[in-house]
Amino acid sequence: MTPPHPAWLPVSAFRPVGSRRVRVTGAGTLVDTVRGEVAAAVAAHGGALVDDGPADLELVCGGDDGSEAFTVARAGATSVRADGGAGLLYGFHHVVRLGEAAFAADFAPERHAPRRSIRMLDHWDNMDVHPVMGQVERGYSGDSIFYADGRVREDLGRVEAYARLLGSTGVNRVGLNNVNVHRTEARLLTDLLPDAVRLADAFRPHGIRVHLSVGFASPITLGGLSTADPLDPAVREWWNRATAAVYAAIPDFGGYVVKADSEGRPGPFAYGRDHADGANLLARALAPFGGTVFWRAFVYDHHQDWRDRSTDRARAAHDHFAPLDGAFDPNVVLQVKYGPLDFQAREPVSPVIAAMPGTRLAVELQVTQEYTGQQKHVCHLVPQWSEILRFPLGGDAVGDIADGVVAVSNVGQDRFWTGHPLAQANLFGFGRLAWDDRLAPEAVLDEWIGLTFEDPAAREPLRDLMGDSWRTYERYTAPLGVGFMVNPGDHYGPGVDGYEYSRWGTYHFADRDGVGVDRTRATGTGFTGQYPAPWRDVYESAETCPDELLLFFHHVPYGHVLRSGRTVVQHIYDTHFAGVEEVGRMVGVWAELKGRVPDAVFGRVEELLAEQLRCATEWRDQVNTYFFRKSGVPDAHGRTIH
Amino acid sequence: MTPPHPAWLPVSAFRPVGSRRVRVTGAGTLVDTVRGEVAAAVAAHGGALVDDGPADLELVCGGDDGSEAFTVARAGATSVRADGGAGLLYGFHHVVRLGEAAFAADFAPERHAPRRSIRMLDHWDNMDVHPVMGQVERGYSGDSIFYADGRVREDLGRVEAYARLLGSTGVNRVGLNNVNVHRTEARLLTDLLPDAVRLADAFRPHGIRVHLSVGFASPITLGGLSTADPLDPAVREWWNRATAAVYAAIPDFGGYVVKADSEGRPGPFAYGRDHADGANLLARALAPFGGTVFWRAFVYDHHQDWRDRSTDRARAAHDHFAPLDGAFDPNVVLQVKYGPLDFQAREPVSPVIAAMPGTRLAVELQVTQEYTGQQKHVCHLVPQWSEILRFPLGGDAVGDIADGVVAVSNVGQDRFWTGHPLAQANLFGFGRLAWDDRLAPEAVLDEWIGLTFEDPAAREPLRDLMGDSWRTYERYTAPLGVGFMVNPGDHYGPGVDGYEYSRWGTYHFADRDGVGVDRTRATGTGFTGQYPAPWRDVYESAETCPDELLLFFHHVPYGHVLRSGRTVVQHIYDTHFAGVEEVGRMVGVWAELKGRVPDAVFGRVEELLAEQLRCATEWRDQVNTYFFRKSGVPDAHGRTIH
Repeated sequence: MTPPHPAWLPVSAFRPVGSRRVRVTGAGTLVDTVRGEVAAAVAAHGGALVDDGPADLELVCGGDDGSEAFTVARAGATSVRADGGAGLLYGFHHVVRLGEAAFAADFAPERHAPRRSIRMLDHWDNMDVHPVMGQVERGYSGDSIFYADGRVREDLGRVEAYARLLGSTGVNRVGLNNVNVHRTEARLLTDLLPDAVRLADAFRPHGIRVHLSVGFASPITLGGLSTADPLDPAVREWWNRATAAVYAAIPDFGGYVVKADSEGRPGPFAYGRDHADGANLLARALAPFGGTVFWRAFVYDHHQDWRDRSTDRARAAHDHFAPLDGAFDPNVVLQVKYGPLDFQAREPVSPVIAAMPGTRLAVELQVTQEYTGQQKHVCHLVPQWSEILRFPLGGDAVGDIADGVVAVSNVGQDRFWTGHPLAQANLFGFGRLAWDDRLAPEAVLDEWIGLTFEDPAAREPLRDLMGDSWRTYERYTAPLGVGFMVNPGDHYGPGVDGYEYSRWGTYHFADRDGVGVDRTRATGTGFTGQYPAPWRDVYESAETCPDELLLFFHHVPYGHVLRSGRTVVQHIYDTHFAGVEEVGRMVGVWAELKGRVPDAVFGRVEELLAEQLRCATEWRDQVNTYFFRKSGVPDAHGRTIH
Repeated sequence: MTPPHPAWLPVSAFRPVGSRRVRVTGAGTLVDTVRGEVAAAVAAHGGALVDDGPADLELVCGGDDGSEAFTVARAGATSVRADGGAGLLYGFHHVVRLGEAAFAADFAPERHAPRRSIRMLDHWDNMDVHPVMGQVERGYSGDSIFYADGRVREDLGRVEAYARLLGSTGVNRVGLNNVNVHRTEARLLTDLLPDAVRLADAFRPHGIRVHLSVGFASPITLGGLSTADPLDPAVREWWNRATAAVYAAIPDFGGYVVKADSEGRPGPFAYGRDHADGANLLARALAPFGGTVFWRAFVYDHHQDWRDRSTDRARAAHDHFAPLDGAFDPNVVLQVKYGPLDFQAREPVSPVIAAMPGTRLAVELQVTQEYTGQQKHVCHLVPQWSEILRFPLGGDAVGDIADGVVAVSNVGQDRFWTGHPLAQANLFGFGRLAWDDRLAPEAVLDEWIGLTFEDPAAREPLRDLMGDSWRTYERYTAPLGVGFMVNPGDHYGPGVDGYEYSRWGTYHFADRDGVGVDRTRATGTGFTGQYPAPWRDVYESAETCPDELLLFFHHVPYGHVLRSGRTVVQHIYDTHFAGVEEVGRMVGVWAELKGRVPDAVFGRVEELLAEQLRCATEWRDQVNTYFFRKSGVPDAHGRTIH
C-alpha cells in the first residue's frame, strides 16, 4: 500500500532543524514526542540530538503544567522555552515553520500563546457505513481513518500520523464520531469504550484530548431507562456513572459533543425542558473530571413550509438560544455555526455570537467542503475564516468573543488525506487560525506551501492559484449571499431551484421581477433585529448592506444598482463569466507546476481542475440561464447565455 | 403472517360457478388447473364437479394445441369449448366474470380470441437489493415476490397465487428479472438456472411462459470471452449453447428481454454493429426452440446537454430503429414504449409504432406507477391504455398494429400485492386490454369491481372514485403534455425545474414569456416529421395540436389561447385548483365506503388518500407559484397562489 502523503510534515521540512545540534530538556509525554521528532530529523539530515555541550537549538520544558505558551529567542543558540510539554511541542513546530530564519543572527525574541484554549476538529465519522450518508458524513476523502467494519481499525498508524499533523498546528481536541450518532458508535460510550481508549492513546502524545458525540436519548437506548428527561434523578445518575466509567478509561477525556432537538435528533424538548437543562445535565456529569460539553446551536425547524413567508430558518439559533444566556454551566460551550444557515460560501456572521455574553461560545467552521466544492474544487477557505474571526460583531471581533474554534475535519483514507491535495492547506490553516486568528491568511498559506513543497519555484504559482480561490468559488456559485442553489441531498453542483420549494427553509424567492430574502425588520422576517448596532441598521437598508450579502437580507429588483455600480442581474452575469474564466486561468497556472511538485500530486490536481472547470461552467450556465429566463434582461456584453 | 389479499379472485367471486354442477372434459396441465379451480369453487359454494350426468356448466377442451380461443354458449347448460387448455382456462374465467349472467336463459353465444398472442408482464425485480434502486426497480409494493437474499424464494406460494391471477386475465408471458441486469440475476442464465426453473414451474399451470432479461455482454461477464461482438462466431456459439441449456431445463421458455446500448447498458454499438445485428444474434439462438427476443427500443443519449436545443430525446427511438425496419428476424419483437419519452401521464403515441411495418412490435406500458403516483395516488390507468391502443396512428389503430402488449408489473410482497389496493385494478385491466383493446375501460373497471367487492353498493362509489382518476392526476401535475417536472431520481412529487438543466433530455424551457418544447419541423427539433399524416401536420401547428399535447410540441406564450378558449397560464391555474378539489372530493367518496369494503382495505386507502391530497396540494402550489413567479399573470379568479 502506498503510504499516505506526508502533507505539511515531509522529511524535507525538517532540514533546518535536523541538520543542527539540538538539545531537548524536560520530561513528560509531549516532551518525549518532541524528542522523537528531533531524533528523526537529525537522523535524516545529519545533525545531532545532544544531551550536553553546545547546541544550535535548545528546547526547554520548564515544567509540566499543561501551558501551551512558548518563547523563541536567539542568544548564540536558538531556544524554545515552555512551561509545559504542549508549549514545547508547539514551539518546536514553530521553529520548523520558521526554518533557517529561526537561526538568523538577528532573530528577535518572540512569545507565543494561543488566543484560546479550545481548538477542535470534529469528525462526522460513522462506525458503520450509513446507507445514505456513507461512512463519513459529508466526507470527500474516502473511508474513515478511525473506523472499519463497525470497529476502530486494527492498525492506527494513520491515526497517529494524523494526530502528529494536527498537533503541529496547535489543534488540541478532536471529536471522534458523527454528531448524528447512529447505533454502533453510540456504544463507544459503553461497551465499545475500549475502542475509544485506543484512539485516545493515539492522540495523547500530540497534546490532543478526545471527545465523544453522544445521543441525548442514550439513557433509554443504551441504558434501558424509560426516560431521558434531564431532570430525572435516574437519568442524572445514568450519565454520572457512564461518564465516570469513561474517565476511568481515559483520564484526559475532553468531554461530549451533542446535537439535540435538531434535524430529528432527540433532545430535552421531548420532556418540556430547554437546551440549558439538557446541556447542564451532561456538564454536571463531566465537571468533576474537568470535562466540557459542546452543545450545538444548530437547531431549527427542518419541516418548514415554503409557502409560509413569516418563518425564517436564519432566525432559529438566536430565537432558541439567546434567551438562555446565563443559564448554561461554566463547562458548557455553545457551539455556533459561523453563519445563521449552514456553512455556505458566504453568510453574514451569526448574531448569536454577540448575543450571549454570559455563555462560553465556540465558533464552528467547516474544513470539509460540503458547500464549497467537496474537495473537487480548489477553494482555500482560510481567507473566509479570517474574515469571520476578524469581523467586529459587537464591540469585539468574533475571534475576541469566541472561547473556542471548532471545525469539521476533511480527512479520510485517501492517499492525500483530503481528496484534493491542495485541501490539506485548509486543515493546516484551520489549526493556525484557531491558534491565532490575527495571522494573515497569506502568511498561513505561505507557511503551508513552504513546508509542503520543496521547490521554492512552486510558491508563487500556488499563491496565485489558491489565494483568491474562495472568492472565485463564490463568483461562479450562488450570487450576492443568497446561498444554497445546490443539488438537494448531495449539495454538489448547481440546482438553482433545488431547495426552493423544500422543507429545509433555504429559499431565494426569485420571480420575474427580482430575487432575495427580505429579512428586514421593516417588511421582512425581522432577522436584522437580532444583530447589535451598527449591523442591525447596516443590514436593514439595501443602501448600506454590503453587496456580497445583499440578497441574504433583501429582496430587490433585478435592476437594483449595487454599491459596485452594476445592476444585480448584470452582476450575476459578470461574476459567473469571471469565475469560470478564473478557473480556466487556474488550469494554466497549475500546468506550469509540472515537474515542480510530485507527479502524483500534479496528476491528481490536474484531474480535479478539469472537473472544477466543468462544474464551474455548469454553474455559470445554469445560474445565468435561470436569471435570464426569469428577468428577460440580456447580458450587457452580449455573451452567450443559453 | 397475514395471507395476501385475494385481489379479484376472492372465494365470493366463484359463487355463480361454484354453486352449480360443473363438468370438465379434456386433459392436460391447464385443463387440470381449470379442474382444480372448479373443485375449489364447488367445495366453497355447494355445487359439484361431475364426470357424467346433467351439468349446469360444461367446460370442454377438444385438444391440446395451445389455442387460446374459446366459445361460450348456452343450450340447456352453459358450455365453454376450447381447442386448447389455455382457451379453456380463459373461457372458465370469462364465465367467472360473467357470473349469473352466463347462466341466463337468453345467453347468446360468444366466441372470444385474443387480439394478439403476446400479452406480457415484465418484472424489474433484482435478486439482490440494489443500493439505489432497491429490490424492485420502480417498485412501490414492497420486496420482490420472486427473490429474497439473492435467490429465488423457498416458498413460492405467493408466486403461484400471482400466476393464477395473471392467468385469469389472459396474461401469457412474464419477464422474471429487471432489464437492468445486475450481477446476481445475470446468473439465472447459467448457474442459477435451477432458480428460473422453479419460477417457470409456478407459472406453467396458468399458461404463462417465462423470460429472462439478459445482458448483452454476457459472453464476456458470464462466459469469459473477450468480446460480445454479435458477428463473432465464438459469441454466437456461446449464446447457442447457453440458450440450448435453458431449453433443456425449461422446454416452454419464452425467450429473452434485452435493454442494450441504453442508459449505460452494454450493446452492439461497442463493436460497430447495429441493433438488428444484436437482436438477431439472440433470435437465432432462440429460433430452434420457438423462443422470442424482446428488444427494447428505449434507446437514447442520456448524457444530453441542456444547452443544445438541437437534440431531442423524443426523436431518439425513431432515429435509431426506423431505418432498421425489415432487418429484424421474425422472432424478434421490438418493444416500444407507448410514448417517445418515458411513461409520462400524457405523451403522444410513439411514432415508431407506425414506422416499422416490416418488424414485429410490442407496445410497452407501465402498470407500476413510476410517474403516475407510485401507488400512493389513485390513478386508474386503463383509460390511458385504451386511448393509446385505440389511437389511429397510421391507417390503423395502435392496437391493430401491435403484435404484443407488454407492461411493467406493479406487484410485491405487500399484503394487497400492489401497495394501493385500488392499483390491483390496473394489473387486472392491463391483462384484459392486452387480450382485447376494444373493451371499454368502464366495462373493465366494472368487471374488476364486481369480482373484487362483494357488496354491490360499493360499485357506484368506486366507479366515481377511480373512473376519471388518471385525468385528475394529469390535472394537478405537469400541464398540457409537457411532462416530467418531478423530483429527480425518485420521480415522486413536484420538481418543476427538477430535470430542467439535467443530462436526461427532459425539458420544458419555461421562461418569463412562455413554456413548452418546440418539436416542429418549421422551427423546432423536427420531431413532428416522424409521424405519418395526418399527425405530422396536426401536431405541427399550434392551432390544430390537441390542447393536452400542446406543450409537448410547441413553445408558446403564457397568453396563448387554447382550443378550450382559456390562456395557457390560466389553464395551468384552473386545472391545478380543479385537480386538488377533485382529490378532496375523492376523500369524501371513499368515506362513504366504510363498512362496504373490508376494514383493512378501507384503512389503507383512507391513509393513502390523505397522502394523495397532501401531494396533490404540493403539486398545485409549486406549479402555480412557479408559473406565477415566471409569468407575473395573476389568477383570473383571485385564488391563493403563494
